[in-house]
Amino acid sequence: MEISLNNAIESITHQLQLWRRDFHQYAESGWFEFRTATRVADELARLGYQLQLGKDVIKAEDRMGLPTPEQFAEQEKRAIEQGALTEWLPHFSGGFTGIVATLDTGKPGPTLAFRVDMDALDLNEDLTAQHRPHAEGFASCNSHMMHACGHDGHTAIGLGLAHILKQFQSQLTGRIKLIFQPAEEGTRGAKSMATAGVVDDVDFFVAIHIGTGVPKGELVCGSKSFLATTKFDVTFHGKAAHSGARPEEGKNALVAAAQATLGLYAIPRHSEGSSRINVGVLNAGIGRNVIADHALMKVETRGETNEINEFMYQKALNVIEGAAKMQDVDFKINLMGAAQSSHPSPEWVDFIMGLAQNKIPELASVIKDKPQAAGSEDATYFMERTKAQGGQATYMIFGTELSAGHHNERFDFDEDVMPVAVKTLATIALSLPEFGGKTHE
Amino acid sequence: MEISLNNAIESITHQLQLWRRDFHQYAESGWFEFRTATRVADELARLGYQLQLGKDVIKAEDRMGLPTPEQFAEQEKRAIEQGALTEWLPHFSGGFTGIVATLDTGKPGPTLAFRVDMDALDLNEDLTAQHRPHAEGFASCNSHMMHACGHDGHTAIGLGLAHILKQFQSQLTGRIKLIFQPAEEGTRGAKSMATAGVVDDVDFFVAIHIGTGVPKGELVCGSKSFLATTKFDVTFHGKAAHSGARPEEGKNALVAAAQATLGLYAIPRHSEGSSRINVGVLNAGIGRNVIADHALMKVETRGETNEINEFMYQKALNVIEGAAKMQDVDFKINLMGAAQSSHPSPEWVDFIMGLAQNKIPELASVIKDKPQAAGSEDATYFMERTKAQGGQATYMIFGTELSAGHHNERFDFDEDVMPVAVKTLATIALSLPEFGGKTHE
Amino acid sequence: MEISLNNAIESITHQLQLWRRDFHQYAESGWFEFRTATRVADELARLGYQLQLGKDVIKAEDRMGLPTPEQFAEQEKRAIEQGALTEWLPHFSGGFTGIVATLDTGKPGPTLAFRVDMDALDLNEDLTAQHRPHAEGFASCNSHMMHACGHDGHTAIGLGLAHILKQFQSQLTGRIKLIFQPAEEGTRGAKSMATAGVVDDVDFFVAIHIGTGVPKGELVCGSKSFLATTKFDVTFHGKAAHSGARPEEGKNALVAAAQATLGLYAIPRHSEGSSRINVGVLNAGIGRNVIADHALMKVETRGETNEINEFMYQKALNVIEGAAKMQDVDFKINLMGAAQSSHPSPEWVDFIMGLAQNKIPELASVIKDKPQAAGSEDATYFMERTKAQGGQATYMIFGTELSAGHHNERFDFDEDVMPVAVKTLATIALSLPEFGGKTHE
Amino acid sequence: MEISLNNAIESITHQLQLWRRDFHQYAESGWFEFRTATRVADELARLGYQLQLGKDVIKAEDRMGLPTPEQFAEQEKRAIEQGALTEWLPHFSGGFTGIVATLDTGKPGPTLAFRVDMDALDLNEDLTAQHRPHAEGFASCNSHMMHACGHDGHTAIGLGLAHILKQFQSQLTGRIKLIFQPAEEGTRGAKSMATAGVVDDVDFFVAIHIGTGVPKGELVCGSKSFLATTKFDVTFHGKAAHSGARPEEGKNALVAAAQATLGLYAIPRHSEGSSRINVGVLNAGIGRNVIADHALMKVETRGETNEINEFMYQKALNVIEGAAKMQDVDFKINLMGAAQSSHPSPEWVDFIMGLAQNKIPELASVIKDKPQAAGSEDATYFMERTKAQGGQATYMIFGTELSAGHHNERFDFDEDVMPVAVKTLATIALSLPEFGGKTHE
Repeated sequence: MEISLNNAIESITHQLQLWRRDFHQYAESGWFEFRTATRVADELARLGYQLQLGKDVIKAEDRMGLPTPEQFAEQEKRAIEQGALTEWLPHFSGGFTGIVATLDTGKPGPTLAFRVDMDALDLNEDLTAQHRPHAEGFASCNSHMMHACGHDGHTAIGLGLAHILKQFQSQLTGRIKLIFQPAEEGTRGAKSMATAGVVDDVDFFVAIHIGTGVPKGELVCGSKSFLATTKFDVTFHGKAAHSGARPEEGKNALVAAAQATLGLYAIPRHSEGSSRINVGVLNAGIGRNVIADHALMKVETRGETNEINEFMYQKALNVIEGAAKMQDVDFKINLMGAAQSSHPSPEWVDFIMGLAQNKIPELASVIKDKPQAAGSEDATYFMERTKAQGGQATYMIFGTELSAGHHNERFDFDEDVMPVAVKTLATIALSLPEFGGKTHE
Repeated sequence: MEISLNNAIESITHQLQLWRRDFHQYAESGWFEFRTATRVADELARLGYQLQLGKDVIKAEDRMGLPTPEQFAEQEKRAIEQGALTEWLPHFSGGFTGIVATLDTGKPGPTLAFRVDMDALDLNEDLTAQHRPHAEGFASCNSHMMHACGHDGHTAIGLGLAHILKQFQSQLTGRIKLIFQPAEEGTRGAKSMATAGVVDDVDFFVAIHIGTGVPKGELVCGSKSFLATTKFDVTFHGKAAHSGARPEEGKNALVAAAQATLGLYAIPRHSEGSSRINVGVLNAGIGRNVIADHALMKVETRGETNEINEFMYQKALNVIEGAAKMQDVDFKINLMGAAQSSHPSPEWVDFIMGLAQNKIPELASVIKDKPQAAGSEDATYFMERTKAQGGQATYMIFGTELSAGHHNERFDFDEDVMPVAVKTLATIALSLPEFGGKTHE
Repeated sequence: MEISLNNAIESITHQLQLWRRDFHQYAESGWFEFRTATRVADELARLGYQLQLGKDVIKAEDRMGLPTPEQFAEQEKRAIEQGALTEWLPHFSGGFTGIVATLDTGKPGPTLAFRVDMDALDLNEDLTAQHRPHAEGFASCNSHMMHACGHDGHTAIGLGLAHILKQFQSQLTGRIKLIFQPAEEGTRGAKSMATAGVVDDVDFFVAIHIGTGVPKGELVCGSKSFLATTKFDVTFHGKAAHSGARPEEGKNALVAAAQATLGLYAIPRHSEGSSRINVGVLNAGIGRNVIADHALMKVETRGETNEINEFMYQKALNVIEGAAKMQDVDFKINLMGAAQSSHPSPEWVDFIMGLAQNKIPELASVIKDKPQAAGSEDATYFMERTKAQGGQATYMIFGTELSAGHHNERFDFDEDVMPVAVKTLATIALSLPEFGGKTHE
Repeated sequence: MEISLNNAIESITHQLQLWRRDFHQYAESGWFEFRTATRVADELARLGYQLQLGKDVIKAEDRMGLPTPEQFAEQEKRAIEQGALTEWLPHFSGGFTGIVATLDTGKPGPTLAFRVDMDALDLNEDLTAQHRPHAEGFASCNSHMMHACGHDGHTAIGLGLAHILKQFQSQLTGRIKLIFQPAEEGTRGAKSMATAGVVDDVDFFVAIHIGTGVPKGELVCGSKSFLATTKFDVTFHGKAAHSGARPEEGKNALVAAAQATLGLYAIPRHSEGSSRINVGVLNAGIGRNVIADHALMKVETRGETNEINEFMYQKALNVIEGAAKMQDVDFKINLMGAAQSSHPSPEWVDFIMGLAQNKIPELASVIKDKPQAAGSEDATYFMERTKAQGGQATYMIFGTELSAGHHNERFDFDEDVMPVAVKTLATIALSLPEFGGKTHE
């Protein structure tokens, strides 16, 4: 099996690069992955996977940080012009760009799921000679959209894995689900797929990422560095008035936002673990000589545990309501994103570590976890849901060399990581019977 | 009449000084005027005035800024030791130190009222040689109580006027009411006498003050420099917690007070006139390493009109409620004082100006009004009430030389102002029939 | 004289409307009055006025609230396309759109100056049927520029007055200066013309406005309702950092702005007169999960006197510097506009009142002043400068009916006001010898 | 040895209780331990220890949170009345209440130090029947001073240990230093003893505490739960002014404190570990109608490492300086206390754990560390200094049953812990030669 898997991996290595560069060139931000999703769906359908698409795998009301209808219309038009496959587009229209592809081996066995994400960042890509994507002609052609986090690679890995698994179907048991998620940036998409139930039948779950500071040749098998987070917009609506002529008639939304800002940063530290609060953006007012009648704040809380994040969020709600009351202005809170803390299942992580150490010689270093700068990741929704149903879950990071940090306009990665990732994930699927873990029923 | 009035005034001039210096020496702060009130009552009773005392002229629930029962007990004891007349004391016990003395001439005519105030300030008097009250042995013997605003003089003027009016009773018509008010400092007392109805039958009302920057020999007949004001204490009650061990368990009253403070000062200016806001005192917390569980703020609003002050106060309520909400703490607001803006009745002022110019040669300058530093005065409650019932009212200021500004520990005044004031007020009473103003009925 | 003046006024009445509607249609915001200024200059030159233009009448460094070089280039191009006269344009290029036109009668006598302003507001004009400028085809063709304050009428009045004065030159004495000012909105332009010295030889000065709530047929001869003001932008520059990963590395410009906002509104009231403070606009930050590295605040202070406004401004500087220090961020303050309080010269106002009452029967009501909602006006710079040199100055308001308030997108005015204004101003010039006021020398 | 040690311990058990109850009854707050220190010194001198006292072991300028000279005078008088030994008192006068007692065995070997603290808390002791110290007659006779943290027990243990060590001197090697520290509460005293050099020759250091939630029979051998901390008072000095008459003349210290408070709580979280900030007390202003001219804030920062605490403190300095600048007030910062984070030496902790497990059967449970609520302890200064000189250090906690939490007015502890602690510490001294740890030279 080892030999033929190596051969199979080798035979798709070039295709992995083609896919990745195609997705990179037509980078699409969260909920706008129309071209990407239609091409992924088409490829998976050709391979013979059963597909569930759009509203079947995304609960509409749990999507967060949605664009406006006008933006959707514009972006679907753009996607069509850039080669989105129109026979698939209706499934994804209006911000339902999720795909679940299932391979049912027909043989008894547990259900195993792999999750990748497909969205780009709201960023303009660097267009100078030293940036490889530009030099080699695959830099993003979409303004303010760039794959600066590696999700293009994740999507390519997902497709490569689909090919390999299909090829080795006879050696597999149970069912395998490949989850292609939209809108991970801003942690906006996973919750809606999790609450749609896509992992409710899953016994073993794996989410992946590349890079994030892990060096080439190293594999993290159970990352728990993620903070739970809630991301929300706050709007205050007051009443405008001429600041010289009738200051007393105004209801000052800008002052409410200033008070709220200071109140939010004053939410106490938590003795049980890390917490975070940020008001990243504040826009208020219409003119120098007018009492500001509106204000918008983009806020996020984080916590080392879901409980700490919830503590921060509940305190934030008090602060905002109180600040509005102080200035007698109205307020509205729009949830824009959310993620949970990550707690990989220890046995599952140990099993994967063993496989990786024994069967993937390309990996020079296989470790359980690596302390990371504290960020957030909404694959945690799938992890928690899988575990809540009795399954086991983990988050893996495949090391690779980066040309610049994530979310930087010069981000690029060493594409050698892709075949290694496909091989490792395929090996997990092929070796699953060796793991005596608990399954559903 | 002029001649004999002059003689009468002259004959009580020394007594005016004796009274004033006695009240000065036994200075009593607001609601504690036990010694003062019993001696005033006794004097007026001897003269034959009909007296209404204590609860008959003070509406209990409209008193503001009351001391504690313990303080009352202690101060009544102190007053007795200092010569309070115990036969009168029961009327005033517990903070009902107001007196209304009526002289009914038996002849038809309007009702005329004069109001003076009796309370001292919470201040330690200067005890150096250059301060006359100390040098001449009548400095306050009560710690933290000092007549540094001239109310000792006002009370003496009131008694002197009572003497003169009684002497000239046969030349008077209608009824005359002398109002001796407690607790003017902090604008705490007048409202409770006004709502008790003491000016409800009054056709013409006069309140007086001495000094306030008006030079010796000058009389202001209709001062309108007073700002309406509301004085209140705010308490926030939160929850203590160890700031190192369990900061998340606290509810921070100190932060609520800081937010409220900034919100109060941010209440907008009013285009229709002057406004003021002050948080004069803030005390919060119990220890460096404890989340503060309580905070107390002493606050006041002011406005050029009652409407502007009310605007300020209503905005302040929003701010306080909102700040409490922000930190999830409880709050309580205690009204501590209030006054209204002053609007002397034009005809009544003109009549008095004419009398003063023609009949009081001691006055070198008689003016309608003089722009003053903006303060507040609760005689305005009597003025507004008198006018609301169809009467006319004014506020007069008798100029005198001061040794230091009002509310200063070295305050003293030229006692020559007292006989001039008595003469002027008596002249108003004696000349009232000349004024064709409207009366009740 | 009266008869022929009436005839002369009548003969230019239609032209006044043509001018006004032309300027209205090609509305140009402050410092962009390229088309307007070239046409005004051309007209005045044809009439034989001596012209001083651009840098000769505008001190470069005292201009405030200037656009960027790119905006200037774009707007000059736009103006040329819309008929700016290219022979005059070089004088005004780069934001020097001021004109002073002098008529020297050759006869001895004082120097009299009239000032009008030429700029539009940054506003989109209403384009519905009920808005006359649109219905009759002279609505602004420039996006985000609209004459919603009547300066189009002021410019037309200035041109009409130039015609009349030239026609009646033989009856005039001394010298007359017509000042056409740019950028009055935001009070950005007058100071630079005043410091350039354009009124340094002026004995009598008149600035005018139409509307502002004064009814048709009424004339205010000496408006003193203007507050001194300082308008400025504040920028804070901090340091971005990832709010989850490295919050301690950020320097938070948004928090600095929030602190500054509350500090600004907490600047105390002034006992000597009205004051104002407003933070009308606040924009800060780049993304929800980034510590904000920059913030912009648009601020203005006002005061009933120059001293009060200066008090407010100096306090504001402390607040801003301190708020920057608190967050260890840099700050920059850009002056964007300024005006002074107005104090018309009493004798000059009385003289004009007399003329208006006696010689302008079109005026049903001639008053000294009318309490107005507190705004600001930079003609006050000319007034103060004239007075500082020993001259006399006033600010006149010609009542007219408005379709909507000033600065409203449906603003329009009854054009009948224009010939009345021209007649009144011409009458002042013709009657000046009757006024025994003091002149230079 | 074991047998005779047990006997020796038994023979002093009653004396331990007598000492403890004596210190408890005459509880003395930090820097006021005059009676306690003279009695400790006297006892140690009788035993034959070499003593270093007062200024020889305390660096004057590194003492923090000192009382006033008046308070010192009053407390020394009180101490004499309560039996302070006047022959020793001069050494300690003026707040130098530290003692180092050295036992030099004359035999080669390392220097071992034990540190105990002697101060009480500023707290009134409960005087109800169910509180044992009151019921059994040893409750504090000093108002607002109470041993509610167990330092009375620590001092008794230190004296008991001195007795035992003297008794077993022949079996000891090297030198042993017993450090009796003042003013641990508020973390005010240790730094001044550490910088005086008292542990500069120490190879092995042990500080102890009893209770803190560790159950009876359990020993923590290397507690690292302490946060570094800086405790400081901030005073703002502004300018008073009448809030109605001249608000513009004030410089508002209360507003500065409110701004500073919000700025302090807004200091960012640190990604490398826990941090804390607290404004525990805020007192500002003199009267409701006066602009507040002063404010006092009691503040503390904490950090999981010294670096994080220093980050917090430096940020706090910026905030305070900026807030003062905003209101144009002066400020002063007084350091009131400080402690460092604790990092016990691993080998030293392991050695002690081994001893305790093998030789002290009274200990049912011996553990390395126990997660504790995050507090601070200034013994960390001795620990850091010892380690910086190449030595090893630890912090031990002897479990005991408490009647109420530390710092509670009903705090009391099971005195059985004292002989166990003495035995364990003596065993460390006696067993030291078994430890191959590095020594000086």
